[in-house]
Amino acid sequence: MATTIRPLDDRIVIKEIEAEEKTSGGIVLPDTAREKPQRGRVVAVGPGKLLDNGNRAEIGLKEGDEVLFGKYAGTEIKLNGEEIKILRESDVLAKVIS
Amino acid sequence: MATTIRPLDDRIVIKEIEAEEKTSGGIVLPDTAREKPQRGRVVAVGPGKLLDNGNRAEIGLKEGDEVLFGKYAGTEIKLNGEEIKILRESDVLAKVIS
Amino acid sequence: MATTIRPLDDRIVIKEIEAEEKTSGGIVLPDTAREKPQRGRVVAVGPGKLLDNGNRAEIGLKEGDEVLFGKYAGTEIKLNGEEIKILRESDVLAKVIS
Amino acid sequence: MATTIRPLDDRIVIKEIEAEEKTSGGIVLPDTAREKPQRGRVVAVGPGKLLDNGNRAEIGLKEGDEVLFGKYAGTEIKLNGEEIKILRESDVLAKVIS
Amino acid sequence: MATTIRPLDDRIVIKEIEAEEKTSGGIVLPDTAREKPQRGRVVAVGPGKLLDNGNRAEIGLKEGDEVLFGKYAGTEIKLNGEEIKILRESDVLAKVIS
Amino acid sequence: MATTIRPLDDRIVIKEIEAEEKTSGGIVLPDTAREKPQRGRVVAVGPGKLLDNGNRAEIGLKEGDEVLFGKYAGTEIKLNGEEIKILRESDVLAKVIS
Amino acid sequence: MATTIRPLDDRIVIKEIEAEEKTSGGIVLPDTAREKPQRGRVVAVGPGKLLDNGNRAEIGLKEGDEVLFGKYAGTEIKLNGEEIKILRESDVLAKVIS
Repeated sequence: MATTIRPLDDRIVIKEIEAEEKTSGGIVLPDTAREKPQRGRVVAVGPGKLLDNGNRAEIGLKEGDEVLFGKYAGTEIKLNGEEIKILRESDVLAKVIS
Repeated sequence: MATTIRPLDDRIVIKEIEAEEKTSGGIVLPDTAREKPQRGRVVAVGPGKLLDNGNRAEIGLKEGDEVLFGKYAGTEIKLNGEEIKILRESDVLAKVIS
Repeated sequence: MATTIRPLDDRIVIKEIEAEEKTSGGIVLPDTAREKPQRGRVVAVGPGKLLDNGNRAEIGLKEGDEVLFGKYAGTEIKLNGEEIKILRESDVLAKVIS
Repeated sequence: MATTIRPLDDRIVIKEIEAEEKTSGGIVLPDTAREKPQRGRVVAVGPGKLLDNGNRAEIGLKEGDEVLFGKYAGTEIKLNGEEIKILRESDVLAKVIS
Repeated sequence: MATTIRPLDDRIVIKEIEAEEKTSGGIVLPDTAREKPQRGRVVAVGPGKLLDNGNRAEIGLKEGDEVLFGKYAGTEIKLNGEEIKILRESDVLAKVIS
Repeated sequence: MATTIRPLDDRIVIKEIEAEEKTSGGIVLPDTAREKPQRGRVVAVGPGKLLDNGNRAEIGLKEGDEVLFGKYAGTEIKLNGEEIKILRESDVLAKVIS
Repeated sequence: MATTIRPLDDRIVIKEIEAEEKTSGGIVLPDTAREKPQRGRVVAVGPGKLLDNGNRAEIGLKEGDEVLFGKYAGTEIKLNGEEIKILRESDVLAKVIS
């Protein structure tokens, strides 16, 4: 059985989308941008950010979503042979709709 | 079908207005200003900033609005061949009414 | 028709009052002051600062008010041939009553 | 008619008390103090600091009060030939009772 | 009549206790401590810190209390010939009970 | 009887998982990662973070959980001959499900 | 009669536990740790941290508790011939249960 990880707080787990993979065709991430964003697919979603009243804010992303996020955000690990990234929802710039 | 992106949180997507494009005529952005603002047209609007009570604050902008924003705000990407910018609503200085 | 701009959040638009313009006579802004304030007239007012409960705080200024503000506050643009400044209400020191 | 100014937010307007002016006799402000406080008389009071709930906190000072405040606080201007200072209520250390 | 001062906000007025004065005997403040605390007697108490809801938090000290406070806290002035210090309640480490 | 410790606030106590120990097989923590995460097992959980309303937020971890956390987080001590770490819940990146 | 001190706010008073004193045996504090924690016994507890609503949060420690705390936390004084430390509850890492 494959190992999985469940992110805490408002963190999500992202699998980066490599250039050779088939993705939503319309997006080009220029090399010259000041903060080059990266594309990835959401593979796990945390319970949401803790609010001052003790509840948690719902995360506006779900497994399978394609997202853009800042290059230097989050922490990289290898899970079952694949590179993944654990980052916070606030590091995600936008959701991509193909 | 064109790819679109849906910004998260209080982010909006802006298409910059080039000088040659027909725009609201009255505005001149001087080269000598300390923080030179730029003009753009809103092409997508996020769900709004998360409040302490778990609700989201409505964004005071909608698709098609012409706006002024700080030059160094946000992240640039290319979407379907066009340069766009993802920035936060708080980076928008004013809405232009022609 | 003249172009106008509508500031966002707690921002206001100010037209600086030049020395030769007839203004409230009693105020002198010394050149030697550490942070030299400037005079201006309010030409547009935003919807007010977003509060934690999702409402907006009313701005205590209206179009036509003469105000004092810090020299280095805000962003300058030219609108219909006139220099204006977009700044936050909190950058305004006081209202001048002639 | 004299020009007056009405401070915004939690700001107050102070007229500094010069050494030769008759003041409350018991206070000496040593030259050697790390942050030398200064004396002044309140000439105008703002509406109070904006609270998170949208109300304003009442300012605990009124016109005519003699106060001590930090030397480097606030902004100086000349009003009707007199030096005044616009500063925040939180820059006031104490009220002097003669 | 002696001049008195009334501190604002959560400030208190302290008269430092000199070594030769009779005080609570058990406390020694070592010269080698990183942040050497000092002893003083409370001579005036402000209305308390302003809370987010507009009320003020009661100050847990009263006139006559002997307190320990950080050496570099507050502002020194001379009042009626005596050195006093205006500091915030949060600068007080502890109350001394003899 | 073994000594135990009970962490305060939102802190937890972690026993690091050494490489030779049998663990969830799928995770590899690359040496080249910018902020190399580490694996550990939760051995004690605090009462939770203090909220503005005076309650405490429940901690989403329990004794026995395997977690990933940042290498430089927390404080190391030896307890009954074993290395443990005291860190805050917010330093935990994710829970590992084997 | 011995002098005692009563800490303010969320502060507590700690008497450090020297190595030669009989303590809970299982804990070793390695010299090589980045931030070496220290052991101590609680001798006084403040009224608790002031909350936004004006109440105070109860402190989760009581007189006699053995605690671990960061080496550089707090302020040292001598009280009745004994070294004590005044520090904040948030500087305490964990309570030791023998």
